[in-house]
Amino acid sequence: MKAVILAGGSGTRLWPVSRYGLPKQFIKLNGGKSLLCQTVERLAAVVPLHDIFVITNADYRFHVQADLRSVSPAMEDNIILEPVGRNTAPAIALVMRYCLEKLKCGKDEVIFICPSDHIIEPVEKFAKYARQAETAAKAGAIVTFGIKPSRPETGYGYIKKGGKTAGNGGVCKVEKFAEKPNLKTAEKYLADGNYYWNSGMFSFTIATMLAEFKAYAPEISRRVPATLAKMTADFKNMPSISIDYAVMERSKKAAVLPIDILWSDVGSWDSLPEVIPPDADGNVKVGDVLALDTKRTIVMGEKRLISTIGLKDLIVIDTTDALLIVKRGQAQRVKEVVDMLKASKRKEVVEHLTTYRPWGYFTVLEEGPRYKIKHIVLKPGQKVSHQLHYHRSEHWIIVKGTARVTLGTTTSLVHENESTYVPQATEHRLENPGRVPLEMIEVQNGEYVGEDDIVRLADIYGRKNK
Amino acid sequence: MKAVILAGGSGTRLWPVSRYGLPKQFIKLNGGKSLLCQTVERLAAVVPLHDIFVITNADYRFHVQADLRSVSPAMEDNIILEPVGRNTAPAIALVMRYCLEKLKCGKDEVIFICPSDHIIEPVEKFAKYARQAETAAKAGAIVTFGIKPSRPETGYGYIKKGGKTAGNGGVCKVEKFAEKPNLKTAEKYLADGNYYWNSGMFSFTIATMLAEFKAYAPEISRRVPATLAKMTADFKNMPSISIDYAVMERSKKAAVLPIDILWSDVGSWDSLPEVIPPDADGNVKVGDVLALDTKRTIVMGEKRLISTIGLKDLIVIDTTDALLIVKRGQAQRVKEVVDMLKASKRKEVVEHLTTYRPWGYFTVLEEGPRYKIKHIVLKPGQKVSHQLHYHRSEHWIIVKGTARVTLGTTTSLVHENESTYVPQATEHRLENPGRVPLEMIEVQNGEYVGEDDIVRLADIYGRKNK
Repeated sequence: MKAVILAGGSGTRLWPVSRYGLPKQFIKLNGGKSLLCQTVERLAAVVPLHDIFVITNADYRFHVQADLRSVSPAMEDNIILEPVGRNTAPAIALVMRYCLEKLKCGKDEVIFICPSDHIIEPVEKFAKYARQAETAAKAGAIVTFGIKPSRPETGYGYIKKGGKTAGNGGVCKVEKFAEKPNLKTAEKYLADGNYYWNSGMFSFTIATMLAEFKAYAPEISRRVPATLAKMTADFKNMPSISIDYAVMERSKKAAVLPIDILWSDVGSWDSLPEVIPPDADGNVKVGDVLALDTKRTIVMGEKRLISTIGLKDLIVIDTTDALLIVKRGQAQRVKEVVDMLKASKRKEVVEHLTTYRPWGYFTVLEEGPRYKIKHIVLKPGQKVSHQLHYHRSEHWIIVKGTARVTLGTTTSLVHENESTYVPQATEHRLENPGRVPLEMIEVQNGEYVGEDDIVRLADIYGRKNK
Repeated sequence: MKAVILAGGSGTRLWPVSRYGLPKQFIKLNGGKSLLCQTVERLAAVVPLHDIFVITNADYRFHVQADLRSVSPAMEDNIILEPVGRNTAPAIALVMRYCLEKLKCGKDEVIFICPSDHIIEPVEKFAKYARQAETAAKAGAIVTFGIKPSRPETGYGYIKKGGKTAGNGGVCKVEKFAEKPNLKTAEKYLADGNYYWNSGMFSFTIATMLAEFKAYAPEISRRVPATLAKMTADFKNMPSISIDYAVMERSKKAAVLPIDILWSDVGSWDSLPEVIPPDADGNVKVGDVLALDTKRTIVMGEKRLISTIGLKDLIVIDTTDALLIVKRGQAQRVKEVVDMLKASKRKEVVEHLTTYRPWGYFTVLEEGPRYKIKHIVLKPGQKVSHQLHYHRSEHWIIVKGTARVTLGTTTSLVHENESTYVPQATEHRLENPGRVPLEMIEVQNGEYVGEDDIVRLADIYGRKNK
């Protein structure tokens, strides 16, 4: 069995923490590991690490690589790259082609698909269910995972189970897939007992899924027999459609494994208490929070001190450049805010103040007319592209580690508490030859200090000028 | 008549905006001028600028000087310095000594005392009342200003007026001073019609006040005949007592001028709508605020984007390093938060990230192990003390203006986009010889980067090592 994690999403339902530049799956929401890392480690209880893959797009490639490396250096290339986003059905077609061609899988290989940004506990229980699903998948079913609902949730799709399938443990037929219900309907579903939350996880053999693609998604199906290279080149012509809509809701092979487990898709800030247990006053507090007479709130901060007095049923999400305060129960309306901010082209919905690059990351400490100040962290062994800027010069002061700096044709080492100066229009390159992260302060001066004033002459990460 | 503004307070009722390092009177709360500047300009409608003085302490001397200079360069030395804070009664004794000795006033000179951090409108009406009070003061009264209440306010002290005094316009006798009432009592006061808010402003002649000090505050009184120098040296031995308690509540000469004017002491965040009119939804919004379905809130930000959804009756005060969220009507409880933060020695109750110095100010952009990054602004013509540091070296990069830098025995000019390096334990001095503010980025490196690692060898502002 191969386990494949879908990690191409750029959800903003957890804005301002989750943004396009660093979306939810890469965030350390509970504890010290990203949701993607937690997902990888959970799957490791089911299959060996070398059978776990992540499908993502070019923008998130280096985030995924860093997360995989943190679990095991051997995993860093277990990445399937989607050339463009075309929803889940084409992505799964690409996964199958990858398995057949690169991993030399037979068509009877079981593939287990799961989202990258959910919380599931405990791991042992999850592993048991995953193996049960594998058995049913081998017998020809497309096995979805239905979570036993604990409340009349209106934020999830539902699966209504039918009768048990023969010889497949607890796996049942699917009577129907149901859209996100209103509260009344959700209450009916809960009382009924045959409705389960659609967790977005499913197992199938390549043969089964190929047959279903052929029957229900011929536009996608006819592109699968090509080579991986050809399929990739042609990917933009795939229809953009979800696997649920393209296959699941039509297939007669769809089955559901009802499971009873702690599960959350952390789909809005309202669901955070499912992941981080509230204290005695019903408050979920993350960061430097001083709460007086405050009940049933969710307060999540970073460095800043947050003081609350007399609050009830509120959500406060504080980041360096954007603060969100929303009445509890209304967190799905964050979408409205995000849409308004997008319409006015606000950078706060796209990027954080910290921007991630293949070689590390930088944080803009301050920006003013004719200058910009950055804190740059370059990972060990990495190098920034060989580049030049037409409109700005740069002062570099090393505060930690050692830099190898090339200016024109001269290369030298610059150590902690030393500085160097890169004049305007001078070719330069920054490398970290050392074993610890290189940290430096960059002061840019010039008539224009935008990120797009860059001419890349060479880049080990294959980036080109846009 | 001399007008004297009391500007030594360090109130934290408007925390986190008002802190010891830059308290309320120096803050631009409404519009572009500090409350102190607004106070000076209001008094300018009553007396010439050269008759307006500010009494403050050494910590606020340069703030006051900068504010006075912004009104008129000729005013910058109209400052009476309190050696230590001893509440208002000793302060007023010091003011009288200053007037007699430095300004050569006669004992029949009227002194008008007013706080530095109140809002009063319109100015013309205020000026008319101030002149009315002057007349009554000349006739021997200590004239307080009683504001006609517009609501049953529990945050102010009250003055109950008695019968009119003969020949003094609207000036009445004081029947009694009343402490801040509870709501029921405040409602009774409002219905009664004879109770007025105690505005903290009052007028008197030196002769009258000296006589009352002699009668009711002999401990203070006996120190007034000394020279200003002697009184200053002995100031720490003054009893710490308010003028209300020491004199007003006992004096038979206390009078009240009932006035009908827009007045606010902006005593808590709850009172901000008295100063900044709410919009159609009842919201007071300052800064970059996106409010959805939000009513009757006060949201005050700086640079950060603030988004609110579904909020009602809340106060949100956001500063660079501290965020306060409090239910409307409970803003006086900010005091509890401030006390808790003081107890745990949190810097957020004392200083802002921007620290003011006689020569300008600096903002800490980032601080980490072994380094600190500052944005420094040095005003034209100013110079930082001649100094050295034992534990850190400093990189200076000029982003605006020109610096004169002395390193050891060498002095040179450093221009925009140039940098210089100050090694550990090297004597150095930074000056701004130019006509525009000098802005620079300082990167400190060293085993210890605390502000107290400084040896001052010379300082034009008279500062010494502590």
